Amino acid sequence: MSIFSDKPKEECGIFGIYGPGLDVSRLTYYGLYALQHRGQESAGIAVTDGHGIRLHKNMGLVPEVFSEGVLARLTGHMAVGHVRYSTTGSSLVINAQPLVCYYANGMLALAHNGNLTNIGKLRGSLAAHGSVFQSTNDSEVIVNLIARYSQNKIEDAILKCMLDIKGSYSLVVMTEDKLIGVRDPYGVRPLCIGKMGDAYILASESCALDTIGAELVRDVEPGEIVVISDKGLNSIKKMAAKRQATCIFEFIYFARPDSVIDGFQVNQVRREMGRQLAREYPVEVDIVISVPDSGTAAARGYSEESGIPFEEGLMKNRYIGRTFIQPNQEMRELAVRLKLNPIKNVLRGKRVLMVDDSIVRGTTSGKMVSMLKSSGAEEVHMCVSSPPIIHPCYYGIDISVRKELIASEMSVDGVRKFIGADGLHYLSQEGLLKVFGKKMPQCTFCTACFDGDYPIEIPMPDKQSKFLLE
Amino acid sequence: MSIFSDKPKEECGIFGIYGPGLDVSRLTYYGLYALQHRGQESAGIAVTDGHGIRLHKNMGLVPEVFSEGVLARLTGHMAVGHVRYSTTGSSLVINAQPLVCYYANGMLALAHNGNLTNIGKLRGSLAAHGSVFQSTNDSEVIVNLIARYSQNKIEDAILKCMLDIKGSYSLVVMTEDKLIGVRDPYGVRPLCIGKMGDAYILASESCALDTIGAELVRDVEPGEIVVISDKGLNSIKKMAAKRQATCIFEFIYFARPDSVIDGFQVNQVRREMGRQLAREYPVEVDIVISVPDSGTAAARGYSEESGIPFEEGLMKNRYIGRTFIQPNQEMRELAVRLKLNPIKNVLRGKRVLMVDDSIVRGTTSGKMVSMLKSSGAEEVHMCVSSPPIIHPCYYGIDISVRKELIASEMSVDGVRKFIGADGLHYLSQEGLLKVFGKKMPQCTFCTACFDGDYPIEIPMPDKQSKFLLE
Amino acid sequence: MSIFSDKPKEECGIFGIYGPGLDVSRLTYYGLYALQHRGQESAGIAVTDGHGIRLHKNMGLVPEVFSEGVLARLTGHMAVGHVRYSTTGSSLVINAQPLVCYYANGMLALAHNGNLTNIGKLRGSLAAHGSVFQSTNDSEVIVNLIARYSQNKIEDAILKCMLDIKGSYSLVVMTEDKLIGVRDPYGVRPLCIGKMGDAYILASESCALDTIGAELVRDVEPGEIVVISDKGLNSIKKMAAKRQATCIFEFIYFARPDSVIDGFQVNQVRREMGRQLAREYPVEVDIVISVPDSGTAAARGYSEESGIPFEEGLMKNRYIGRTFIQPNQEMRELAVRLKLNPIKNVLRGKRVLMVDDSIVRGTTSGKMVSMLKSSGAEEVHMCVSSPPIIHPCYYGIDISVRKELIASEMSVDGVRKFIGADGLHYLSQEGLLKVFGKKMPQCTFCTACFDGDYPIEIPMPDKQSKFLLE
Amino acid sequence: MSIFSDKPKEECGIFGIYGPGLDVSRLTYYGLYALQHRGQESAGIAVTDGHGIRLHKNMGLVPEVFSEGVLARLTGHMAVGHVRYSTTGSSLVINAQPLVCYYANGMLALAHNGNLTNIGKLRGSLAAHGSVFQSTNDSEVIVNLIARYSQNKIEDAILKCMLDIKGSYSLVVMTEDKLIGVRDPYGVRPLCIGKMGDAYILASESCALDTIGAELVRDVEPGEIVVISDKGLNSIKKMAAKRQATCIFEFIYFARPDSVIDGFQVNQVRREMGRQLAREYPVEVDIVISVPDSGTAAARGYSEESGIPFEEGLMKNRYIGRTFIQPNQEMRELAVRLKLNPIKNVLRGKRVLMVDDSIVRGTTSGKMVSMLKSSGAEEVHMCVSSPPIIHPCYYGIDISVRKELIASEMSVDGVRKFIGADGLHYLSQEGLLKVFGKKMPQCTFCTACFDGDYPIEIPMPDKQSKFLLE
Repeated sequence: MSIFSDKPKEECGIFGIYGPGLDVSRLTYYGLYALQHRGQESAGIAVTDGHGIRLHKNMGLVPEVFSEGVLARLTGHMAVGHVRYSTTGSSLVINAQPLVCYYANGMLALAHNGNLTNIGKLRGSLAAHGSVFQSTNDSEVIVNLIARYSQNKIEDAILKCMLDIKGSYSLVVMTEDKLIGVRDPYGVRPLCIGKMGDAYILASESCALDTIGAELVRDVEPGEIVVISDKGLNSIKKMAAKRQATCIFEFIYFARPDSVIDGFQVNQVRREMGRQLAREYPVEVDIVISVPDSGTAAARGYSEESGIPFEEGLMKNRYIGRTFIQPNQEMRELAVRLKLNPIKNVLRGKRVLMVDDSIVRGTTSGKMVSMLKSSGAEEVHMCVSSPPIIHPCYYGIDISVRKELIASEMSVDGVRKFIGADGLHYLSQEGLLKVFGKKMPQCTFCTACFDGDYPIEIPMPDKQSKFLLE
Repeated sequence: MSIFSDKPKEECGIFGIYGPGLDVSRLTYYGLYALQHRGQESAGIAVTDGHGIRLHKNMGLVPEVFSEGVLARLTGHMAVGHVRYSTTGSSLVINAQPLVCYYANGMLALAHNGNLTNIGKLRGSLAAHGSVFQSTNDSEVIVNLIARYSQNKIEDAILKCMLDIKGSYSLVVMTEDKLIGVRDPYGVRPLCIGKMGDAYILASESCALDTIGAELVRDVEPGEIVVISDKGLNSIKKMAAKRQATCIFEFIYFARPDSVIDGFQVNQVRREMGRQLAREYPVEVDIVISVPDSGTAAARGYSEESGIPFEEGLMKNRYIGRTFIQPNQEMRELAVRLKLNPIKNVLRGKRVLMVDDSIVRGTTSGKMVSMLKSSGAEEVHMCVSSPPIIHPCYYGIDISVRKELIASEMSVDGVRKFIGADGLHYLSQEGLLKVFGKKMPQCTFCTACFDGDYPIEIPMPDKQSKFLLE
Repeated sequence: MSIFSDKPKEECGIFGIYGPGLDVSRLTYYGLYALQHRGQESAGIAVTDGHGIRLHKNMGLVPEVFSEGVLARLTGHMAVGHVRYSTTGSSLVINAQPLVCYYANGMLALAHNGNLTNIGKLRGSLAAHGSVFQSTNDSEVIVNLIARYSQNKIEDAILKCMLDIKGSYSLVVMTEDKLIGVRDPYGVRPLCIGKMGDAYILASESCALDTIGAELVRDVEPGEIVVISDKGLNSIKKMAAKRQATCIFEFIYFARPDSVIDGFQVNQVRREMGRQLAREYPVEVDIVISVPDSGTAAARGYSEESGIPFEEGLMKNRYIGRTFIQPNQEMRELAVRLKLNPIKNVLRGKRVLMVDDSIVRGTTSGKMVSMLKSSGAEEVHMCVSSPPIIHPCYYGIDISVRKELIASEMSVDGVRKFIGADGLHYLSQEGLLKVFGKKMPQCTFCTACFDGDYPIEIPMPDKQSKFLLE
Repeated sequence: MSIFSDKPKEECGIFGIYGPGLDVSRLTYYGLYALQHRGQESAGIAVTDGHGIRLHKNMGLVPEVFSEGVLARLTGHMAVGHVRYSTTGSSLVINAQPLVCYYANGMLALAHNGNLTNIGKLRGSLAAHGSVFQSTNDSEVIVNLIARYSQNKIEDAILKCMLDIKGSYSLVVMTEDKLIGVRDPYGVRPLCIGKMGDAYILASESCALDTIGAELVRDVEPGEIVVISDKGLNSIKKMAAKRQATCIFEFIYFARPDSVIDGFQVNQVRREMGRQLAREYPVEVDIVISVPDSGTAAARGYSEESGIPFEEGLMKNRYIGRTFIQPNQEMRELAVRLKLNPIKNVLRGKRVLMVDDSIVRGTTSGKMVSMLKSSGAEEVHMCVSSPPIIHPCYYGIDISVRKELIASEMSVDGVRKFIGADGLHYLSQEGLLKVFGKKMPQCTFCTACFDGDYPIEIPMPDKQSKFLLE
């Protein structure tokens, strides 16, 4: 985790386009640009003109990885793109996606967002039949499974593969003539379908559709396979899950505020969380402030519901980048100030409610409370627009080590004392679900990190093969 | 101008610290980080331990230019830093600052924010006496002048130099034993004094003081020279100006919202501009939205004054960076969408007031209006929190070519039609000044870009020597 | 082919070390440095400490790919290294070696020098059983074959694999506990064994042993597998070939002059070729010069045998690097001068014999003859220390397209006229073989590029799957 | 000094061209390429079309600094180029040349090879009159002096400047209409004149003329100023020196073997040195070998004169580059082997004479002797084609610290013991001068590093201002 953030990390963003006559690699580039928040460590685009697949991928942000010259060489009518943030292992170009390979039926490109939970077992079983693996990527296991079923049509091979793999997965698969979208039976990670003229687009979030000027058609449904080809879009729904379990953190933190997921405008959901916080914790303060940018929508919701004015009490340095020389020991308290500057004129003598989306380790929250107080705030209360995170995530979020979760170690009042706040309120799980209204019953979301109710089998502690590629 | 922005550009941010016992180069690094918005093309730090001056500067953002190793070598008790955005000429490391030189009395470092208006004459006159120039930088002229007066103490040499130079200049000068801050007699560019224990700091904006944990003492006054040494801070005020003329665009757009300049909290001034807009242009709309981030404070002020709800109707891609592959001709309309995504759920069927801080060329505003309408907005009005920019700036802002200023070519209604808005209102100059309240009379600001009333002599059209360093 | 050279290109250099207690990654680094002439496009080192394998590889020269920090992380007691020059396809990091993978029995690293001739068939057959391929590398096929035979011990799996693969291959294979060297049954590519204390080394050429201070023990024999482990070195010889067929171009051009291959000191062999040329073509000239550096040994041999003085008539620019701005059309004749400068004082009025090791396309030779004449040479004869190259190579040398071989298109006299020489003599194949003396019968070498007598089955024209990874 | 070499370092190579109608920047690029051996740390080209001067310079080798795009922008009819190896201070782009500046009469570009000895005094005196200096470069002092005399024509200003400056200097100066070559009155550094059609070229060495296809006209004479303009070439000779004192190390080591300096073919001079060594030290050995490449010409001369066969006993790794991971303590003896590999087949049982051009610190020579012996040589004698270096150089060669000169600390026999040789002979100074024949009397060369007879005033120990630019 970086010095600036103890936010959970998302793993990946995926994108696919079937667009004869369009500059598909360039559109994929813009689509990935819009999904950059889902992964900043590597980016890749694979493209086909019907005869073979060309690939370019590398470490870095989308505009660092691709140049005009590279895009110009990636010609074709279908493309798949991927941005990755690595949760485990070192970040290596060998782990960058899409994964492109040659198998019995020709070539295949695959982009994956999610985390398989039975990967060790699958790798062992495939290896026993002669498979070799060059990375620790889930994707490599998936393509090997598809290859095992290569006597079938690609969509059937994928279906068989879905019977083997467990965990969360949204996939975009491209052969030389088909573009295929897959969402796991629980729908843990998002995936939506867009249309632009005759072209079809698959994307992790609808903001990528907006960016290229496409219309959102609908989400891929949990367990659904959509096959796009010159015959148009065909849906295959043969996998049934006991329940949908979309990761609720997509709404709390991960997704871009301008995206629409499963019918909900993310930013409006976040504002509603703030309104609910105001109802649950009607504290007497003078101003509501947010931890920008992640807490701003909820802070505004709180302000609207409570009538307490929203002020910009913490100003963010917009030039905070990925690399930075860390303050040394004596300057440790500067670390938070480099990103966020408290406005004394706003805070002086005020009772302040600070709203953020979540607390993971609590150290950053503590620094912010202390900074607000030393800037003149008389009282500092904190509201968090999610329940306490107590359980690790096995489905692709970087909150996997229980002892790093402050709420699993302390009571809420313990956390309050730890961060030095005068009050602390987490949004109740009940309240969180209310936000979605009647449209969606509780069982629609995965809330395992709050309540330990894991919808999908989780892995046994595993003796991992030491497989290190520097 | 970049594809994403036709905002005016600021030239520079400057920083100086006198701090025996402190890690001055690291503190300067963080100070420059806080001033990064004032210049993104080069950065530099010069440091002295009393014996010679060490310098490191290069093209790039602050964290790109400096590494741990570089900072570790920059040891001493005084430092000067600079970030630069080049308004004229190509961006070259030879133009990066601070400028460090050896002259008759030893070594000297200089960091400059502003623009001299009699530079051609000064260069000619210095050259006639044997000076050579390796760049087209104002700073090189200033150090040559100081060197001409080297029979005097450094503060007296600077005072003599101030009688020669015309234009805008905030300077931080460092010799082997003194740190000196200078603000031109009109106070066009800001410069403030901070204190942290026994250490003194000079900075373009107070946000740099906040970042390193220093207290704002006061602004350097127009025409003032402050000399910081082991004898403490000494003020020299021998230059009188007919009037103060601080660049009003510092408040409208340039300065960071969390800075306090001449006693005004920038963000609050901007919100007040929005309130004033609401009083001047009480249009009947359903929602107020902003062009993030520059228009947000004013949009919120408008909302507060008018009671019309503020909504996030345009969502910004936070990963927009400096480099980017431009959309080709057919995708031209994507250019704005890559940065700003209109939220259909918010806009659909609404009469919308969009608030921005200024219009320079008008092309971006036009694209945004069109984007809002195609996202379902029924009416789009635009409010601008500054008067029309009609006249070029000669004091350091990149709005120097009259024909690129849409408001100097068209009436307000012409601009309205050009951008396709249903209504357009610019903040009146009178209203703009009202925002500052009684504390500050009109003559306190330079408003030449609005009214052509140039406080300082402007240059004659000049036959420039072709001096090109690639 | 580059502007400076139409020499054939070698594919790879390989290196392995079993050295408990030694800094094996650093020794591999120096070994690869000594083998840099065999491949300049990528470099890689894989290392094991008995538990897993760590790998670092990238595009570039050895010192560009590895830093102190990278080597420091590559700790263990066994290592495999590889340098690559790509003959086919684009040069990509995905093609860089060693190839490291996880398979049924753990981990495996493989470095390959050579070219398989039945690769298409093997890939097809493996794919039919579910294998996937992420590159077009021979190595990936070999590891998949080994994985198929993973119910056997690694040495037995390799032996079975050798029954499947055809073509040229020298291999270094590393598991978590064994280092294995393999040379194909014809011994096309070299591979030698060294010893340094208790440590064993495998290397393409003995110069790599010299560099790290190891002693040359012997060459790996054609068809031999040597297994090095904590039980020492064990030899397995179960593959018999009808004949040895070491690539004779290793002696003519590829190998470093200070290497000893199959008992022959390369530089002395080249000098002997020059002596033989003098016997075959005793032309009346004033001086013998060489095309440095490749022709120098033969030129000196010619001079010694003939008594005609050897002079440095062409001086090489030692700073010629990989990148260079090519002269434009009018300056085309400069291209050769940039690398080689004719010394007028030496050449003026002289009858000159110029010796080079080979002629591929003939264009560079032509430019050199013309340059010598314009520098005052009265006559220019050329001797080539190899027979005319008429047939393409399928075993790993970049002379695969027949129409680019000038000698396959023209008679010797045609070539002479084409290059503008007054005389031209190619070393006869008989003479070439005589050079090796009685120690080695003719059938010891592959001379297929001269006589079309291919020792190993060559591939059928193949409809290649378009597998392009940019 | 690098791990591989304790050779003295040259400072610079300079180049100028007056060529209306030619692509002068590209020709300068090739000229600098040919002069790359004179400086590998920075490169620069300045060009004029008669109106202003454009410049591009940076750290790195010529092909690293210049791209097609950069050259394409450097259009004009005159150009000046420079390659630099920094002897003192850190290597910084601010020290890269040409130096381009604006002064009273317009613009000026200057490239300098040499070292001024009264630089401290000149800087002080210029600074007292108001000059400022941004580097510690001699060149900046020279342009300031020229600017002081700007009431004169440029050639007269240069002449006046020559009366002030002491030390070694070959200069190429370019104004907007003249190209001027200058060689100091002692002619310490070389500078020659070439012609190609109507174009004139100035270059440090004639190999640069050969490379671009120009003819060598003659050397610029000591104390001569040549002015090239649309009126052709005009010579000004008003400076008389008591004697010529060309640096004899240009012939021993620095200059490229294919250059002709002051009428002598460098390579032939070196061979003659070897012949003279054979006459002075007729040792009974079996073979003569060289330290490649610097000792090869002399070794061949020794072989020719003595009749003892010349063999390649040390083979050089042609891929040795600028960056390299140094062997750690236990591998220290590998350092020399990485560059030079002794050929056991050649050395075994032989009495060997090893020839090199010079010994500076002696450590490398010692390692080579030891390596030869451990490769089987029975006796190792060493011959050096220059006398012992006892005195530091103040005229631009990096042998300035007396205690690093082994020959100034020990007798010849002491050095012999230190390097472990069975015999050691340095070429006598008398013998060295004989090599040049009757054409040149002794006083023609600077031999101060051998005999302490400094032709030009040397600097007093100087309290240097600490002027450090990182």
